[in-house]
Amino acid sequence: MHRLLRAALRQQVDYTPVWFMRQAGRYQPEYRELRKKHSILEICMSPELSAQVTLLPVTMFPALDAAIIFSDILLLLRPMGIQVEFIQAEGPAIINPVRTGADIDALRPFDGLPPVCEAIRLAKRELKVPLIGFAGAPFTLASYLVEGGASRNYLKTKSLMVAPAWPKLMSRLADAVIAHLRAQIDAGADMVQLFDSWVGALGAEDYREYVRPYSQKIVDALRGRAPVIHFATESGHLLEMMDGDVIGVDWRVPLDTAWGRIGARAIQGNLDPATLLAPRAELLRRVDDILRRAAGRPGHIFNLGHGILPETPPDAVAAVIEHVHAATAGGSK
Amino acid sequence: MHRLLRAALRQQVDYTPVWFMRQAGRYQPEYRELRKKHSILEICMSPELSAQVTLLPVTMFPALDAAIIFSDILLLLRPMGIQVEFIQAEGPAIINPVRTGADIDALRPFDGLPPVCEAIRLAKRELKVPLIGFAGAPFTLASYLVEGGASRNYLKTKSLMVAPAWPKLMSRLADAVIAHLRAQIDAGADMVQLFDSWVGALGAEDYREYVRPYSQKIVDALRGRAPVIHFATESGHLLEMMDGDVIGVDWRVPLDTAWGRIGARAIQGNLDPATLLAPRAELLRRVDDILRRAAGRPGHIFNLGHGILPETPPDAVAAVIEHVHAATAGGSK
Repeated sequence: MHRLLRAALRQQVDYTPVWFMRQAGRYQPEYRELRKKHSILEICMSPELSAQVTLLPVTMFPALDAAIIFSDILLLLRPMGIQVEFIQAEGPAIINPVRTGADIDALRPFDGLPPVCEAIRLAKRELKVPLIGFAGAPFTLASYLVEGGASRNYLKTKSLMVAPAWPKLMSRLADAVIAHLRAQIDAGADMVQLFDSWVGALGAEDYREYVRPYSQKIVDALRGRAPVIHFATESGHLLEMMDGDVIGVDWRVPLDTAWGRIGARAIQGNLDPATLLAPRAELLRRVDDILRRAAGRPGHIFNLGHGILPETPPDAVAAVIEHVHAATAGGSK
Repeated sequence: MHRLLRAALRQQVDYTPVWFMRQAGRYQPEYRELRKKHSILEICMSPELSAQVTLLPVTMFPALDAAIIFSDILLLLRPMGIQVEFIQAEGPAIINPVRTGADIDALRPFDGLPPVCEAIRLAKRELKVPLIGFAGAPFTLASYLVEGGASRNYLKTKSLMVAPAWPKLMSRLADAVIAHLRAQIDAGADMVQLFDSWVGALGAEDYREYVRPYSQKIVDALRGRAPVIHFATESGHLLEMMDGDVIGVDWRVPLDTAWGRIGARAIQGNLDPATLLAPRAELLRRVDDILRRAAGRPGHIFNLGHGILPETPPDAVAAVIEHVHAATAGGSK
């Protein structure tokens, strides 16, 4: 079994596996070239282009321990009857937001995203490392769906959250996520990640009551199919309550403190993406600090605490991969 | 002594004091009217207008337990030679950002903001409740100064943070904050709040090394002069390290959990501002939950976890004040 999957199961590894959230992206010249010719939606809906972008980072950094399918969490809403647009610089926009019980009733059942699964099949043919599939978690999807795009205060979402229609919306989204992740696993994904990027905006009690049951349902539905990484940012107050085989943590809480609160599960993280722009000595000092806190325990997947920033120099990415592998060679204890 | 000051010192009170961050603001019709005629800068630099806006909420809600001087944390940078502009909808902009050691050397020593102190004197004449003065904390001020405005990733700030020039910048800002807060206390402020709004973007170890010494210096310098409230958002991972007589917490961590980590100090918070838009029964249920977690212990100042949102209905604010006072009548134990 590849060290990425072994780490997810907290088995011993030869060295700590490394991958990077948003490892295919604007910091890469090849990606920027491709984006001159194609929109994000075009890339995501073309199995060939999506597979090609998925392979960019493993070509650029052959020592990477995983690929992640190039896609977007909001695509899953399209088969449900939601119009999603990606507006340059402004981020995604939902043309027909969902705000009432009637809007929720009008959502179509998710019936698959064949281009994503086909892209997974194409990428798998070329890959020597595991491929990670992914989906947005229900709260984050709901926040886009209700607000109509990115949000600062999540006012409309928090308002719907305490209304009777909320469980129906979250159940519909959880069912779609389960179907989408199962299809990705069937197509060849070795592992999946649930992105709950915005759930840190909620208080701990709201998470427990209005969000956790649906994430838990997803994790339960995938048990025995593939390991599930559950990632959120600003989630220090939620760590004990997050379900999944691997908990992805941002950089705010030190890795050892976070791991103590997660308990007997694997952990992914947690270098601040801004660190990749620091002088090399400072960058490696911070990588070492994370490794020191992981202390060779089985179950650590090295990653950032959020996606790679567009300003990142690619050679800093290469340096981190090399350093983590060299520093942990000999394996977990 | 007024119950607000008694609570800050963890003394018994007749009922729990209440005020709201950004209690003078766009949710008030009178404020919106005034803003049609005057810019934010005009209001802040006019003692008469600033005092007038400071008094708006205590006139609207006579049961409020505090006023807070109407001002802006970035004004303090102007006497230091920094041009600050408030651009409608886009927020504040720094025309001449500070990014190098030479930029820091060129900063002028802070020599006072007489209009703010004069506004405090004017407001004090009318007020029957304590008046809170305030300043931005050094990290939050530095982030505006370095980035040139609001930021998402604080890339330039985090880059300067690990450079040799950082201690000089933070010391200069801490000295300015101390001088500004002392002047506000001398003018009549009964208590001061340090706003470290953006410090939650840092990891715990970065806070300890690059930020805490400067906040600590400010708190030490004000000891015996007036109680200091230290407020930050997304600060669940920093609570143990925050200095001050009262720690202001956002809504993410439940009040009792946060209080346990703060230790033997007073606490301010922690209603989610979005809650003020919820149906009344839901709003009061959440207020009660916070009071239940405070459990009548001396040292709780009821407030939001961040500023009042412009969409807030004023009668929800009135309902919270009335409910907190009624529910805690009889006092802390």
